[in-house]
Parts: sequence; structure tokens; C-alpha cells
Amino acid sequence: MKPLITTPKAEEDSVLYSPFTRETGMQVSSIGESTLITRIKEWLGLCNPASPMGIGDDCAVNPIQDPEAFHLTTIDGVGWGKHFDAHVPPEAVGRKLLGRNLSDIASMGGIPTVAVVALWLSPQSNLQWLERFYRGLAAMAGMHGVQVVGGDVSAAPENVFIADLCLQGYCRRPLLRRQVSPGDTLWVTGTLGGSALGKHHTFEPRMEEGQWLSESGWAKSMMDISDGLGKDLPALTGPAVVRIDPLPISEEAKQMATSSGLTAFHHAVNDGEDFELLFALDRSVDVPTFVKDWTNRFHTPITRIGIVENAPSESGFHWLDCEGKPFPKASGYEHF
Amino acid sequence: MKPLITTPKAEEDSVLYSPFTRETGMQVSSIGESTLITRIKEWLGLCNPASPMGIGDDCAVNPIQDPEAFHLTTIDGVGWGKHFDAHVPPEAVGRKLLGRNLSDIASMGGIPTVAVVALWLSPQSNLQWLERFYRGLAAMAGMHGVQVVGGDVSAAPENVFIADLCLQGYCRRPLLRRQVSPGDTLWVTGTLGGSALGKHHTFEPRMEEGQWLSESGWAKSMMDISDGLGKDLPALTGPAVVRIDPLPISEEAKQMATSSGLTAFHHAVNDGEDFELLFALDRSVDVPTFVKDWTNRFHTPITRIGIVENAPSESGFHWLDCEGKPFPKASGYEHF
Repeated sequence: MKPLITTPKAEEDSVLYSPFTRETGMQVSSIGESTLITRIKEWLGLCNPASPMGIGDDCAVNPIQDPEAFHLTTIDGVGWGKHFDAHVPPEAVGRKLLGRNLSDIASMGGIPTVAVVALWLSPQSNLQWLERFYRGLAAMAGMHGVQVVGGDVSAAPENVFIADLCLQGYCRRPLLRRQVSPGDTLWVTGTLGGSALGKHHTFEPRMEEGQWLSESGWAKSMMDISDGLGKDLPALTGPAVVRIDPLPISEEAKQMATSSGLTAFHHAVNDGEDFELLFALDRSVDVPTFVKDWTNRFHTPITRIGIVENAPSESGFHWLDCEGKPFPKASGYEHF
Repeated sequence: MKPLITTPKAEEDSVLYSPFTRETGMQVSSIGESTLITRIKEWLGLCNPASPMGIGDDCAVNPIQDPEAFHLTTIDGVGWGKHFDAHVPPEAVGRKLLGRNLSDIASMGGIPTVAVVALWLSPQSNLQWLERFYRGLAAMAGMHGVQVVGGDVSAAPENVFIADLCLQGYCRRPLLRRQVSPGDTLWVTGTLGGSALGKHHTFEPRMEEGQWLSESGWAKSMMDISDGLGKDLPALTGPAVVRIDPLPISEEAKQMATSSGLTAFHHAVNDGEDFELLFALDRSVDVPTFVKDWTNRFHTPITRIGIVENAPSESGFHWLDCEGKPFPKASGYEHF
């Protein structure tokens, strides 16, 4: 998502949600850290196990996973004015914080386990907003079997709300990037572009799809699309020449194109925050069998978006249209 | 540390260090995210293993530790104006970020393994400052066998620098809080108070001491002192009555008392950021043997700071002086 820095209206406006309040009795500074942590434990409910497995000691103490698996770690955050604005309900912000990280675990073919959350709160942070944020996070955690086992709370400057979440997991067969060869086909789940219209905070991370693509042995390389296909496809293939098929452009990308002055294709490859899976099948894969196997299991659409013509390529990454002509360069989402 | 929010002078003043610069060619926004991540990998050097063990995929993929151990996770951050100001060299900020988390692993008796770092950078963030920050972090990581295996970078509002670090580790015998009984003695390493004069960013986390206290079997309960003894002692003992011995008050606490209008004792129990170990020995421990065993191994001083008279206590936590009179209440460091 491009930064949507909005100035929230007064809290009385029921359509807008601000993490901050001028009402001192509702501010985080009115209760102090110990009480806040007690509240956070309540808000997290069942996804917060008793100490020392969960919140309450210097570290969370958890059993070691299956020693024949690989351990996975990822960290990703959300910030006010950057990843959400006053149009996003607080539950959806909590949901998105975990969802971004779940999508990373999914893209390795992994199973998520435990999370810790670092919060940076203005003294003016609104406790009601915060409760709804944590309840959204807890609901998402419960849905995916994640336990929130610890965290940290620090004071931030005025009008700053930042939350980082570190998620761990494990997998038996991690699906890495940069494993493609000529003839491999490239696929995406779902549709691309226009996530700023809502999908950026309502998306479902593709957990079962990712796990199945790893365990079944079908996929050979995978990542999630978070910065737009234009940036993430080169990250998956490395320096390669890829011939592109028609992309599954979302209705939202087409809708944004009616007013943005940009094409729907531009939105599909640059918008970011799709949180779809991008994966490669080996050239030896019998595609009809794969597609049948997929559709027997999932309603999620998949689309072949291209084929690797040359990899590794000495001249870097290039994509060509179906007639072999170079495609316009696409940078994806640039963070700075 | 109490928040020391200073306004840095111009960057030309060589004594002050600001994470931000007005010189556009030195700003993080001048190079973009991909180049920044490449630089971060260079700055981290040997403590950043090759992908997929380190930076470069959706998750870090690491082998599972000793399956007979417990897995430890902690997260802690540093923020500009809160945990450091323009008087702290950037290397020391990186060092402190990891050190805070190492101290948590030490206090469980654990061995640290891998870390991920989430950065929130203003577009005006100074690349030279950032390089020095990472080199300080890398030096500390190398010293303690920690690998920095991943991270995240997000754009922050102007004049915000926030970094969260999630550190993992393992231990065979985790030393938890709230394991004390009447007659147990309470001990601290080093001296307490006045860390704002420098120790808050120069401290050495007590890794070997913590591991030995766990593995040797001497200690039964442990934590690190990060919010001041006044807050952390009740966190260690839970509701208990504790009779206090003279505390090992630091020279810095005494120095601060000469100008703060507060007593050195007040500084010793409320300042926070001591990063010393606070631990309990069972009443059955032969104290002279323990002290001899300790001094054979470590130069770090230890002091008996009290004895548990009653635990659990129905009336909450109380501390008494050596004559049995109630001590002044101490809150430790309050974050909001």
C-alpha cells in the first residue's frame, strides 16, 4: 500500500478509527505498564498460554519443535499512517499485523507456532482502540494455531503507533527463492493489484495452500507477493528471462485505474500488499494433473503467469510479453 | 533510563550523534530499500549467514536446536529520544539493542542463537549513522555467537528511529521467576543505579554468569534488573515479605544524588537499565561454598541483598530494613 497518511477527525466520528485519544481517562498513560500488560493478557485470551510458555518472564520458554524439521523466523510490523489509517477498524490492524507474518510462513510451506509483539505507544494511545487491536490479533492467532508468548511495550512520541511482530514456525521442506531453471512455469494464487481498496487488511494468508505446495512436492520455489509482482518476481527467479502470460488482474486494480491515471496492469504489478503466493513448478510437472490436484483441494484460484526462458541470465532480469517483446519495467512498491 | 529527549545540534557538532541528516545524499531515501538491505548485509558481516539461514528469503531457515533443551524467545527495542539521545555513539546504540535482549536470555540461564531486527526509519535517516549502528550490533553479535538472520525495514515519520530486535536461544534448565520460599537468599551481580551516566549503553550482559547459575544448579530463580530493583524484586519474588540487606549502590547513583535532590538509594532502586542479574538461592545452599565457587570463576561482584521472610504473602510484596521496619515503597521505572 502506498502510505495513506490521513488526519483522523475527532473520535466522535464513528466511521474513523484513531489509535489516539484526547480523553485522558482512556489513554494508555492513565494505567501504567503493569496494568497494561495485565489487560493485554486478558485481550489475548486463549492464545496467550500461562507463563513461562507465554507472557510473564524474561523470555518465553517453549518446547523444541520436531527436531527433523527446520525452524522458521520472520518479523514484520504495522505503523499508523503507513500500513493503516483511520479507515481501518482496529481489529483489522491486529489481524493484518499477524497476517503479514503468516503470509511469510506460508510462502516457505511452513506451520506457524509462536509470536512476540513489540508495541510503541504514544502516551495518548487509546485503550479501547488497543483492546480491539489485540482482540483482532487474538482471533487471527486462534484461527491459525498461533500462540502469542511475549512482547515489549515502549513509549513512543505523540501520534506514533508502531507494532512489530516476530513469528516463528517450522517446516519439513522449505520452499526457497531462486530455485528456477529454463522451462519452469510460474504461478500465482488469487488476483493482483488494488489491495488499497480493502484487501490489504482483509486478506487471508494462504497457509494451507503453502503447506500443501511444499509437502506434496509439486512446487520447487515460492515466495509471497507483498511488494508487487514487478519487484517480487525478480526476487523469486533471480536474474532470468521470463515470458509472461496474461496476469490475473483484480477487479480492484481495474477500479483504481478508472481514476488513478494508471493502467490496471500497472496497479497489478506495482501496488503491493497482495499477500498471494508466487511459485514455480518444474518443467517436468504434468500441469493438468497438478491443476486437478489443486482444484480438488482448494477454491483459491491459481493462474499460470509465465514461463522461465533463461535462468540464470547474464543480463539480469527481463520479462517479455507473449510475442517476445520486452515488457515495461516495473519496480513494485518502494518503501522510501 | 528516564527519557532523555534532546534536540541534537547540527551534524557538524562532532560530539553529538543524530540518526537523521539534512544532507540528501546521505539520507536512506537516496538509495531505496534493496540497496539498503544489501548494505545492511555488508555491515553485519560475518554474523549474517548466507540465505536461507540468514537475510534473503521470506523467513530465516535454521536448524532445530538440541531437542532436549527449551526454546527461548524475547523481544526488546530502542527508540530515539527514549533509549538513547545524541550523546550516545551509534555503535553503542546497536550494541545496546542486542545487549538488552542478551540480558533477557542470560537471566533464563540461556545461550543465544539467532536474531531478527525490525527497523523504522525516517526518510531523513543518516546512512553513516546507520552503518555505525549495524557495525556496533554486529560486533556485539560476534562476541556472543549470535547470528542476525533477518529483518524488516519500514518508513517512519520524520525524526523517528525505532529498532526492535527479537532474540532466540535455548537452555536446559530455565531459571524462572516466582520460585522463592521462606529462607531463600536474594543476590545481585554488580552495582545498582545511575546507569543514565553511561552504563545504560556500555553494560556487559551477564551471559556466562547466567548460564553457570543455571547449569551448576546453584540458583533456583532469576531475572535481570531492567526496570530497577524496586519494580523487579517484587516481580522475582511475587507477593512476599523480604528483609533487605545494604544494597550495592553504584558510584554513579551516588554521583547523581549530589545534584538530583534524590538519595543514592532512590537511584539504586528506581533508575532502571542496570542489566544485572537478580537471583535466589535456596535456604539449603551453603553460602560460603557458593561464594567461593563464584569467585573462582568470575570477577563480577555479587552481593546478598536480602532474605525471604515469608512467601507467598497474603498482603502482597513488602520489604523491611534490617531492623524489620517497612522500607519506602519504590516503583522502579514507569514506562508511561
